[in-house]
Amino acid sequence: MNFEHFFRSELDGLHAEGRYRVFADLERQRGQFPKARRHTADGVKDVTVWCSNDYLGMGQHPKVIDAMKQAIDHCGAGAGGTRNISGTTHYHVLLEQELADLHGKESALLFTSGYVSNWAALGTLCSRIPGIIVFSDAGNHASMIEGIRHAKCERVIFKHNSVADLEAKLAAADPAAPKLVAFESVYSMDGDIAPIKEICDVAERYGAMTYLDEVHAVGMYGPRGGGIAEREGLMHRLTVIEGTLGKAFGVMGGYIAASAALCDYIRSFASGFIFTTALPPALAAGALASIRHLKESQVERFAHQERVRRLRSLLDRNGIPHMPNPSHIVPVIVGDAAKCKWISDLLLDNCNIYVQPINYPTVPKKTERLRITPTPLHSDGDIDHLVGALHQLWSRCALARAVA
Amino acid sequence: MNFEHFFRSELDGLHAEGRYRVFADLERQRGQFPKARRHTADGVKDVTVWCSNDYLGMGQHPKVIDAMKQAIDHCGAGAGGTRNISGTTHYHVLLEQELADLHGKESALLFTSGYVSNWAALGTLCSRIPGIIVFSDAGNHASMIEGIRHAKCERVIFKHNSVADLEAKLAAADPAAPKLVAFESVYSMDGDIAPIKEICDVAERYGAMTYLDEVHAVGMYGPRGGGIAEREGLMHRLTVIEGTLGKAFGVMGGYIAASAALCDYIRSFASGFIFTTALPPALAAGALASIRHLKESQVERFAHQERVRRLRSLLDRNGIPHMPNPSHIVPVIVGDAAKCKWISDLLLDNCNIYVQPINYPTVPKKTERLRITPTPLHSDGDIDHLVGALHQLWSRCALARAVA
Ligand SMILES: Cc1ncc(COP(=O)(O)O)c(C=O)c1O
Ligand SMILES: Cc1ncc(COP(=O)(O)O)c(C=O)c1O
Repeated sequence: MNFEHFFRSELDGLHAEGRYRVFADLERQRGQFPKARRHTADGVKDVTVWCSNDYLGMGQHPKVIDAMKQAIDHCGAGAGGTRNISGTTHYHVLLEQELADLHGKESALLFTSGYVSNWAALGTLCSRIPGIIVFSDAGNHASMIEGIRHAKCERVIFKHNSVADLEAKLAAADPAAPKLVAFESVYSMDGDIAPIKEICDVAERYGAMTYLDEVHAVGMYGPRGGGIAEREGLMHRLTVIEGTLGKAFGVMGGYIAASAALCDYIRSFASGFIFTTALPPALAAGALASIRHLKESQVERFAHQERVRRLRSLLDRNGIPHMPNPSHIVPVIVGDAAKCKWISDLLLDNCNIYVQPINYPTVPKKTERLRITPTPLHSDGDIDHLVGALHQLWSRCALARAVA
Repeated sequence: MNFEHFFRSELDGLHAEGRYRVFADLERQRGQFPKARRHTADGVKDVTVWCSNDYLGMGQHPKVIDAMKQAIDHCGAGAGGTRNISGTTHYHVLLEQELADLHGKESALLFTSGYVSNWAALGTLCSRIPGIIVFSDAGNHASMIEGIRHAKCERVIFKHNSVADLEAKLAAADPAAPKLVAFESVYSMDGDIAPIKEICDVAERYGAMTYLDEVHAVGMYGPRGGGIAEREGLMHRLTVIEGTLGKAFGVMGGYIAASAALCDYIRSFASGFIFTTALPPALAAGALASIRHLKESQVERFAHQERVRRLRSLLDRNGIPHMPNPSHIVPVIVGDAAKCKWISDLLLDNCNIYVQPINYPTVPKKTERLRITPTPLHSDGDIDHLVGALHQLWSRCALARAVA
């Protein structure tokens, strides 16, 4: 087989479908976020980033920056080993305690990313608990799907956010089998939110564990930033709460929070936890500072929500259709990979507005979109500029308008 | 099912086998490596770390530290998104170029860890190339095994480092099937080195791709730190070279280096690459500084090898048995999980020497060991102290001595 030929022809397929991905080469500017510099073949240009998951701008918060630099000065660059073999530093220990406290759980366990936390935790639970059946929301993130797939256990997909379908499927399953229900709170591409309470009620009725991904909610919802489950007073009802340190907390890493025994079990058996270098002390220190700040400060959360409302109302006034949802994510559906990329390119090249086109496999085909994420640091002027640019494009390109 | 009960009884099993893992809670001290502070219930104690994979001490190198702090000052904490959605920074672009150059390849692709790079790259190649057969060394790392397992493709395990067995198995396979041979250069637990040239010869004869994990060699071998394949002038013969930024380079992250088409293919199709927050700019900047330094400086590599020789000769003089191998890893086999942990505890509590016991599943049962990793920063005094402590323990505990 000619491997090079195979790779090239697969890539040609992506080009033909208009979904070949070109990464924007950015230089984030501390203190200037959401402004950044963009490197292109023609030199460096200033852009406003409208698609970052540094949702609250904590990636440039002075407390986070200082904590990271201090940790580097104090401990150096990397952890130098896996958690078991010299890689556990005191920052990791403190961060796990802080995360357990954030979610009201006995323990927490760090991973190198949110992706790895889902993959490793679900993969371990689902492969090691004999006869387990996993009930997985149809909209679950790739990292959860891969974890469940890894386990080769029995898997039942229930309709996205449908408690009735979940219940029917739980009822149809062997009553004696151990069960786990895996779902997210805020779904990152549509911005809709799961009926957590109702899912917990049903799961409880059938003796199932519950595993909730709060990756797009931690830091942003709940009085201490514990996520949607905190806001709704439901944290104690979840068996496992999973989160990331790489989005609203502004750094990188992932975790689960759960009972001491469950965390210790994953710690002891999960390949993706055991066989990899630990997070650098500086990342643990930065995340710790970020979480502690957002536990006490509401300023960022309130400003964030206000900016989201303002953007939405201006989009409405200009007839730019956006998906309604109760979260901070503003999806503007285009529905075609090539057109979506073309709009994004125009925004970038003509208006210095950077919103990456989102295409398959991140979202289903025909739902390609601009996924806009306002932050507390987007000014009124930034919002006006964005909506003005979209308005012009929508007029020029005869794109569907929202009918009032 | 009572899940808590299940987790606890599984953990009890680990305790009973003497292989329940207790993490040492360390505070690395920049400028003092390999000294660190260890947090215990009784307070903080100074220890000498003898089991770090920060093999060259680059985790505290001033160039690395400065590069990281500058990147934090310049760009902030996290990348704020996946590589595709606002998370690519100029540091990532530069680092990928540097890595491609290091291994003499057209391209390189970054991942959040070495684990993820193996899992994602092998998982993607082996699941997407129709009918592929993977030939995997019996000693391969968990991350490679998981990647191959993920793919559900046909998999053939060949005897560890046995070219004859590989050849027999290649010869027995369908000549028309696409093939991939996956192996490591330095095997991290025994410290032995693969016959890379012979494996490439055989693979070539059967039209197989070659995938080489150089995680425990990059930075340390070859005139520019390109690994064993560089040292032996073989880099061009490998289809993929995989490495980590978390061991000799002292930071965190992983990568593959290969043809432009192959890297672009993995970039475009690998779930573990696509659906996760990018490395923080500071980690990319730190790794870049580390690689650039080690491309030019031989000092660390020479000192490292000299320290390894010195430790080995002192162990020999004192009759402490250690596995012979041509690398920098010094395994002292104990062969029993509980005894290995007990020795390690004595070293730690009585001598302030920290060598984590290595047990199953990291190594096979009955080969539990102390895995000693000298660095250029271990002094003569450190080595004397370690060997003296081992000598005393070996006398006291009637452990098997090496017979001259
Ligand atoms: C729902 C969800 N879970 C998990 C992840 C992975 O988290 P991380 O970026 O920390 O790997 C993501 C996105 O990246 C996500 O959207
Ligand atoms: C051979 C080998 N490959 C890959 C890895 C994973 O690399 P990382 O620690 O960067 O995840 C390790 C150890 O951690 C390893 O020993």
